Amino acid sequence: MGLLVKGGTVVNHDHTNRADVYCDNGKIISVGTDLDVPPGTEEVEAHGCYVMPGGIDPHTHMQLPFMGTVASEDFYTGTSAALVGGTTMIIDFVIPSPQQSLMEAYETWRGWAEKSVADYSFHVAVTWWDESVSADMGTLVKDHGVNSFKHFMAYKNAIMCADDVLVNSFSRCMELGAIPTVHAENGELVFHLQQKLLKQGITGPEAHPLSRPPMVEGEAANRAIRIAGTLGAPVYLVHVSTKDASDAITYARANGQQVYGEVLAGHLLIDDSVYQNKDWATAAAHVMSPPFRPPEHREALWKSLQSGNLQTTATDHCCFCAEQKAAGKDDFTKIPNGTAGVEDRLTVLWDQGVNTGRLSMNDFVAVTSTNTAKIFNMYPRKGSISPGADADIVIWDPKATKTISAKTHLQNIDFNIFEGMNVTGLPVKTISQGELVWSDGKLNVTKGRGRYINRPSYPPVYEILQKRQALNAPKAVERTAQ
Amino acid sequence: MGLLVKGGTVVNHDHTNRADVYCDNGKIISVGTDLDVPPGTEEVEAHGCYVMPGGIDPHTHMQLPFMGTVASEDFYTGTSAALVGGTTMIIDFVIPSPQQSLMEAYETWRGWAEKSVADYSFHVAVTWWDESVSADMGTLVKDHGVNSFKHFMAYKNAIMCADDVLVNSFSRCMELGAIPTVHAENGELVFHLQQKLLKQGITGPEAHPLSRPPMVEGEAANRAIRIAGTLGAPVYLVHVSTKDASDAITYARANGQQVYGEVLAGHLLIDDSVYQNKDWATAAAHVMSPPFRPPEHREALWKSLQSGNLQTTATDHCCFCAEQKAAGKDDFTKIPNGTAGVEDRLTVLWDQGVNTGRLSMNDFVAVTSTNTAKIFNMYPRKGSISPGADADIVIWDPKATKTISAKTHLQNIDFNIFEGMNVTGLPVKTISQGELVWSDGKLNVTKGRGRYINRPSYPPVYEILQKRQALNAPKAVERTAQ
Amino acid sequence: MGLLVKGGTVVNHDHTNRADVYCDNGKIISVGTDLDVPPGTEEVEAHGCYVMPGGIDPHTHMQLPFMGTVASEDFYTGTSAALVGGTTMIIDFVIPSPQQSLMEAYETWRGWAEKSVADYSFHVAVTWWDESVSADMGTLVKDHGVNSFKHFMAYKNAIMCADDVLVNSFSRCMELGAIPTVHAENGELVFHLQQKLLKQGITGPEAHPLSRPPMVEGEAANRAIRIAGTLGAPVYLVHVSTKDASDAITYARANGQQVYGEVLAGHLLIDDSVYQNKDWATAAAHVMSPPFRPPEHREALWKSLQSGNLQTTATDHCCFCAEQKAAGKDDFTKIPNGTAGVEDRLTVLWDQGVNTGRLSMNDFVAVTSTNTAKIFNMYPRKGSISPGADADIVIWDPKATKTISAKTHLQNIDFNIFEGMNVTGLPVKTISQGELVWSDGKLNVTKGRGRYINRPSYPPVYEILQKRQALNAPKAVERTAQ
Amino acid sequence: MGLLVKGGTVVNHDHTNRADVYCDNGKIISVGTDLDVPPGTEEVEAHGCYVMPGGIDPHTHMQLPFMGTVASEDFYTGTSAALVGGTTMIIDFVIPSPQQSLMEAYETWRGWAEKSVADYSFHVAVTWWDESVSADMGTLVKDHGVNSFKHFMAYKNAIMCADDVLVNSFSRCMELGAIPTVHAENGELVFHLQQKLLKQGITGPEAHPLSRPPMVEGEAANRAIRIAGTLGAPVYLVHVSTKDASDAITYARANGQQVYGEVLAGHLLIDDSVYQNKDWATAAAHVMSPPFRPPEHREALWKSLQSGNLQTTATDHCCFCAEQKAAGKDDFTKIPNGTAGVEDRLTVLWDQGVNTGRLSMNDFVAVTSTNTAKIFNMYPRKGSISPGADADIVIWDPKATKTISAKTHLQNIDFNIFEGMNVTGLPVKTISQGELVWSDGKLNVTKGRGRYINRPSYPPVYEILQKRQALNAPKAVERTAQ
Repeated sequence: MGLLVKGGTVVNHDHTNRADVYCDNGKIISVGTDLDVPPGTEEVEAHGCYVMPGGIDPHTHMQLPFMGTVASEDFYTGTSAALVGGTTMIIDFVIPSPQQSLMEAYETWRGWAEKSVADYSFHVAVTWWDESVSADMGTLVKDHGVNSFKHFMAYKNAIMCADDVLVNSFSRCMELGAIPTVHAENGELVFHLQQKLLKQGITGPEAHPLSRPPMVEGEAANRAIRIAGTLGAPVYLVHVSTKDASDAITYARANGQQVYGEVLAGHLLIDDSVYQNKDWATAAAHVMSPPFRPPEHREALWKSLQSGNLQTTATDHCCFCAEQKAAGKDDFTKIPNGTAGVEDRLTVLWDQGVNTGRLSMNDFVAVTSTNTAKIFNMYPRKGSISPGADADIVIWDPKATKTISAKTHLQNIDFNIFEGMNVTGLPVKTISQGELVWSDGKLNVTKGRGRYINRPSYPPVYEILQKRQALNAPKAVERTAQ
Repeated sequence: MGLLVKGGTVVNHDHTNRADVYCDNGKIISVGTDLDVPPGTEEVEAHGCYVMPGGIDPHTHMQLPFMGTVASEDFYTGTSAALVGGTTMIIDFVIPSPQQSLMEAYETWRGWAEKSVADYSFHVAVTWWDESVSADMGTLVKDHGVNSFKHFMAYKNAIMCADDVLVNSFSRCMELGAIPTVHAENGELVFHLQQKLLKQGITGPEAHPLSRPPMVEGEAANRAIRIAGTLGAPVYLVHVSTKDASDAITYARANGQQVYGEVLAGHLLIDDSVYQNKDWATAAAHVMSPPFRPPEHREALWKSLQSGNLQTTATDHCCFCAEQKAAGKDDFTKIPNGTAGVEDRLTVLWDQGVNTGRLSMNDFVAVTSTNTAKIFNMYPRKGSISPGADADIVIWDPKATKTISAKTHLQNIDFNIFEGMNVTGLPVKTISQGELVWSDGKLNVTKGRGRYINRPSYPPVYEILQKRQALNAPKAVERTAQ
Repeated sequence: MGLLVKGGTVVNHDHTNRADVYCDNGKIISVGTDLDVPPGTEEVEAHGCYVMPGGIDPHTHMQLPFMGTVASEDFYTGTSAALVGGTTMIIDFVIPSPQQSLMEAYETWRGWAEKSVADYSFHVAVTWWDESVSADMGTLVKDHGVNSFKHFMAYKNAIMCADDVLVNSFSRCMELGAIPTVHAENGELVFHLQQKLLKQGITGPEAHPLSRPPMVEGEAANRAIRIAGTLGAPVYLVHVSTKDASDAITYARANGQQVYGEVLAGHLLIDDSVYQNKDWATAAAHVMSPPFRPPEHREALWKSLQSGNLQTTATDHCCFCAEQKAAGKDDFTKIPNGTAGVEDRLTVLWDQGVNTGRLSMNDFVAVTSTNTAKIFNMYPRKGSISPGADADIVIWDPKATKTISAKTHLQNIDFNIFEGMNVTGLPVKTISQGELVWSDGKLNVTKGRGRYINRPSYPPVYEILQKRQALNAPKAVERTAQ
Repeated sequence: MGLLVKGGTVVNHDHTNRADVYCDNGKIISVGTDLDVPPGTEEVEAHGCYVMPGGIDPHTHMQLPFMGTVASEDFYTGTSAALVGGTTMIIDFVIPSPQQSLMEAYETWRGWAEKSVADYSFHVAVTWWDESVSADMGTLVKDHGVNSFKHFMAYKNAIMCADDVLVNSFSRCMELGAIPTVHAENGELVFHLQQKLLKQGITGPEAHPLSRPPMVEGEAANRAIRIAGTLGAPVYLVHVSTKDASDAITYARANGQQVYGEVLAGHLLIDDSVYQNKDWATAAAHVMSPPFRPPEHREALWKSLQSGNLQTTATDHCCFCAEQKAAGKDDFTKIPNGTAGVEDRLTVLWDQGVNTGRLSMNDFVAVTSTNTAKIFNMYPRKGSISPGADADIVIWDPKATKTISAKTHLQNIDFNIFEGMNVTGLPVKTISQGELVWSDGKLNVTKGRGRYINRPSYPPVYEILQKRQALNAPKAVERTAQ
């Protein structure tokens, strides 16, 4: 049975107009006024509301095994919280251990994700290198709908990639039509600073940002970008948190390079004063990498988002509760890194982005949904209110308000980094796969209803990259014998 | 009777897909495969071709009275040449003389334009200031579908605006929801340099670029941008020809300001060596303002177009034949300024933009059509292949080739700045208002079929500008009596 | 009788070394250890102290008639305060009224300055234009030791220069080997915003910064720089107070242009929160143009000073007491613009510059003295501790401390913008023309002992400007008759 | 016996003035007019000439064992050529093999250098890491007058430093008051591209620049700078050859970081078209790393030199004759990397820098001599014409001309990259250690007269670095027990 979103104003990434939206069989069938719909069609009231593509969070870590524990939010609770927050799809990460087969890790994560209630997909991390990794990358792209690979430049002695791995893996991505993504922090510097701080007796959460100053990210961002640029590859930087990294992206884009940057809701709103909190647990609850930054970085990130030099927003949703965080009581390097946000992203971005005139509503749709769909080759199936698209829709009441709190959120974590923030503009209804799953404060989902989304290789960016590669092919100079 | 574009690949600004396009009553009715169309629908073959929104040239001067003569291309011949080149709409300029009523000038131009064969609209120039100008701006916006006003910062002792006029007019634009546009060259400097060069006995066309060096444009671009920024107004810079001006735009955009930049096909392809031509007529044929520039500027313009810091492409199509140019035989300041291009813009941009991997096909559509439609509030009526849009379509054969020449072009001018250029990728068919007007090398139009297009006030950019204005409203500090 | 500064460490702009300094007849005779000095030479103890070139303040307005009143500090009191603060020379401004003869104004100021107790010189303002102004500029340069001319881009309806005056005057400077300087604020925008604010009923000092937002300065700075660049002239921007203007200078310098920027001690230390003060008099006491700025500008100014993109520091010392400021009680545009600082500049810059590691001691000397001497062609007579230089010396105790206050300062004004600031590092002794004039908290001077300093034309920057001018001279293309 | 340079104009980095220079015992005794000199003093005629500090070349490789051969120029011939070219001091490099003791290598190079005829000093390379390297660095700084250490980021599988070595060595430099220097090219990328090109059958010298594109340098420059910045260390980049690397330096300096950049005369004058030469030997003769670059980089380097973002000029003088180059006949990676220039540096820089108005004569002195002396803590002993300085002087005839050629140069190599260049401005006389060693086209030196110059630790830059380090020392947050 179909469903008609009625009376709302449709906001796409490039246009806003008054229109109803008719969905059936999980797809959007038509968009317009005076639509001809079958009798018995369920009506979803949207007067006074904006009707937008459901959010896509390109960066989550549900039930991640990390730093000796496992993230408290699993794929069921996590995708539930996402739907409540208007996010209808996540892209999570498969993270093989060094020497572990990529395929094996991939299958493990696929198994974990089966309980999801919203659509999902996976970036797969390359944490080591040999021929089998290269072969598995091919299999994942060709047979499993993976079109992006993640590289950690931090976490020395664990999953860090040195430059040779980056060079090999980025080159392989080029062969496969995939997007390399990077966590950009210089792991050698982080390691050095961590050891030094511990030696100096600075062991609390306040040492966390000191061990990862902005330049550490700026360096790695630059490195990844130039390696990609040299090879002619695209590159996507996850969780850009500093002016330094954002400037690196801007510089490369201004020079014609194909670089993308993602920014977390948290980095746009919160600064590094949290690590000075006298309460250890509060300070530790904010430990994530990259850390929250001095305020001037926040402003720079907003500006880059406005100017299009950053394109996507995410959360790096990775939940650890107080007792998990306590593992690092005497040593900040042992505090599990991660914060939540999948439920709050859209709301805080609307409040601080749209209500402030930083972003238009169209920009909001672009940075919360459409751009991710485009970059990772799911557009216009995802990220669009248009005929033929998946019926993943958020209905937004710009006048509704609430106060964010861990007490009321659905996320499976005992802390909320946006605690106490009063926001105006809320996702009052969420439609996923054509079903009204969140409405009137009620979530109505069946475990496992979420689908794995295949992402085809060769996203649009390859059109120009391949032309450039052909034009720039090296040529030998013909010389006569001497 | 409807018309079905069949077998092609539709390229919009944000997506490419295989689809047919059904048009009727001048509108696009449906886009997709296996479309249900009425019997008797005319079929337009598009296999192997791209089906794109018709080009919009936001900067033409048909039959402009200027520098003692009148541009040789009129609205009939000019819009004909446009259609042949795949451009289905132009925005021309109403240019009142100082002290002339804006309304009077507007009516004059409307009369001239009635013979057009493609759709058209007008920017109206503000060349002087008093209350009547302010009132006429209101009338034009509210009753005549004008949403943009042009300001010349050059042409001292003629139509140049000093800063007070810019400040008044930009402020008025803000009240009306209109877009101020500027020709950015510092007229005082140009005047000074012209006098100096003439005094030095340098009177040929080679003096033209010397009298308008890049900084002269960089200065004015910066000035217009900062004046707009101070007032909270948007601003659109026509014919950005220098790295200097492009850098000014990039700087402002990176700081969150709403600034747009247009670049001419000529400035992207041709450099200032043309003024050194030993043949006076050839050198003079290239005299336009701003002039062609040293090669490094060209590269900078391409990069800004790629990175989105420039958004639109145009031609400043303004034709003067050899005998008109000869008026400046002994004094370069008397050579009528202008070059042609409305017929060639799409072709040369495809050849040098898309074929080289500088721009994707989607970028091409954006910079030749969609972005102009968005900025000047005609989107998605114009600039889009989607249901409900005007059926203005270009069918592009990426393998077709030709050599550009004044001998074969339709433009009413005896010179072509792209003479001899071999291009690959041509507009083989053009549909305007749902009619196949250009096909198989034949133009099939009736004089006067072109329509004046009303452009509503308050284009999308005002959504955020108005929020910012409200948030930044000045407040008095309350002080107790002392 | 000579004087020997003994036991100190000499700090010049390019080197620091342990040395004594022997002075006689107003000049430095020798610098080194174990100097051979005549018996009876007065010894000035400098153990534990730094011995540096006396400060030069390139921007003061003693007893300036302005906005209906006269600055309270005259040349006698002002130069006295300067000596107490370690500043041994000022460059003040001759400001003719529009239509007033430059020579007449110059003579007037020369008369006022005769009571000075430190050396002084004059920039002369060009506030209007005709042939007599051009002629007087020649006379001043050739016969009166003036090598710099000031241009106000603000103060509409008073002393503001429009672009044609800038173009003419900068060109004339080039002919004469003089340095054009500018007060960079767009006067049209300031006027517009002032009127608007008054209309909105915002009449207090808080309106002052609102009427001169940072872009207003950025615009004018860019304009002046590009006009100079186009003409091949050097340009010196006084009181750069914004990131915007500083970026404009940096951009030009990175492109090979000869541009200089001055920053005021006040702009480096104080932000715009002062205008929100609930006490009208306190807020009004900070009214100067350009105004104090949001904190991010301060940081940008420091960085530009560190990187050499700004070269000099000044005060714009222009004193108005509370009752003078009260003239603008009901209209902020009538508050006399100006603040003091000639006594505090060196101290606050040492405290916030050297003690913080922002500047080296050599940098400190460069930005407080040497660079000004170089730019305005007095080096190494001024700005250097070397044989042959004028014996203008400050002896600095890096450990001495005090709290700045209007209660204890010598400046003839009832307010100190640095009130309450605790500083470490003080000028404990000052030598002017070889005489110990300030020591042990006592000032020992005779009215009128200060000398007018002739500054020769063609400062060093002209070496390269003239070469470039010759190389870039325009050339006609030879064409055969047609 | 003393020596009097008479009649010339002394040009120092900060001032130009007419003066004679009296030298004795290898030192400059006095500078001025009407100097009182002992009878019998030798007079060196300098009328019409400039008298400048002798050049210092901070980057040479005399008799370097490299790539299976040994550089053809040894310390005797090399320093002889230097003197002929007006360069009175070189800083060469001690390059230990991996696992070789730094002290052992240092002693070897000291031995080789004993035959030098001009003063010299050594940077010592850190090519591997363990405690002994750290200890040897201490010994070299404390006991052997070394204050700079070099790091190669290229040359994988040979002397390349990975990030951990950079972090350790830069940290050690900070402890010792030494300057880390880097050869900035990403060795992993170079290696990858070399293998790929060879596989593609592109084996000639044209492959050399393709294997080291500009981004490869930009990446490494950024990395070294950010690593230094994170640690609070200074850093000096040798042979900056790209806009990319220069931009990285400019960015860091604009943000207050202490970064220095050196540029080679060759990179300022020659572009990458040389590698397309049809003659293999000619193309191979230009093989050096980093390679010559596309012309736009050259212009960027000049601008950075003008704006002070690059501070020093060098040659990377490393000579291999045709038969040595031929080792890479079938494999460009085996062509010994290196070109000459120590004899030509001053001349070509004067011709293309001073004669063109790019640099003032003072700038010329700064970038050829003084800045190197300052950065490496030899100023004002070296790099200055002032009493107490070493009497290393070049007497420059700005009107003298010659044509550069391998046929006439003294350098021990059969090729000159500046072959055929006509230059105006020549070093007509050179004084080293107070002796007239080059005059009237004759070199008058005794083997071994050159001295090893100790360079003290803690160059001036450490003044501010140490203050910043103290201010930024990390602090623990005090928290109550929980």
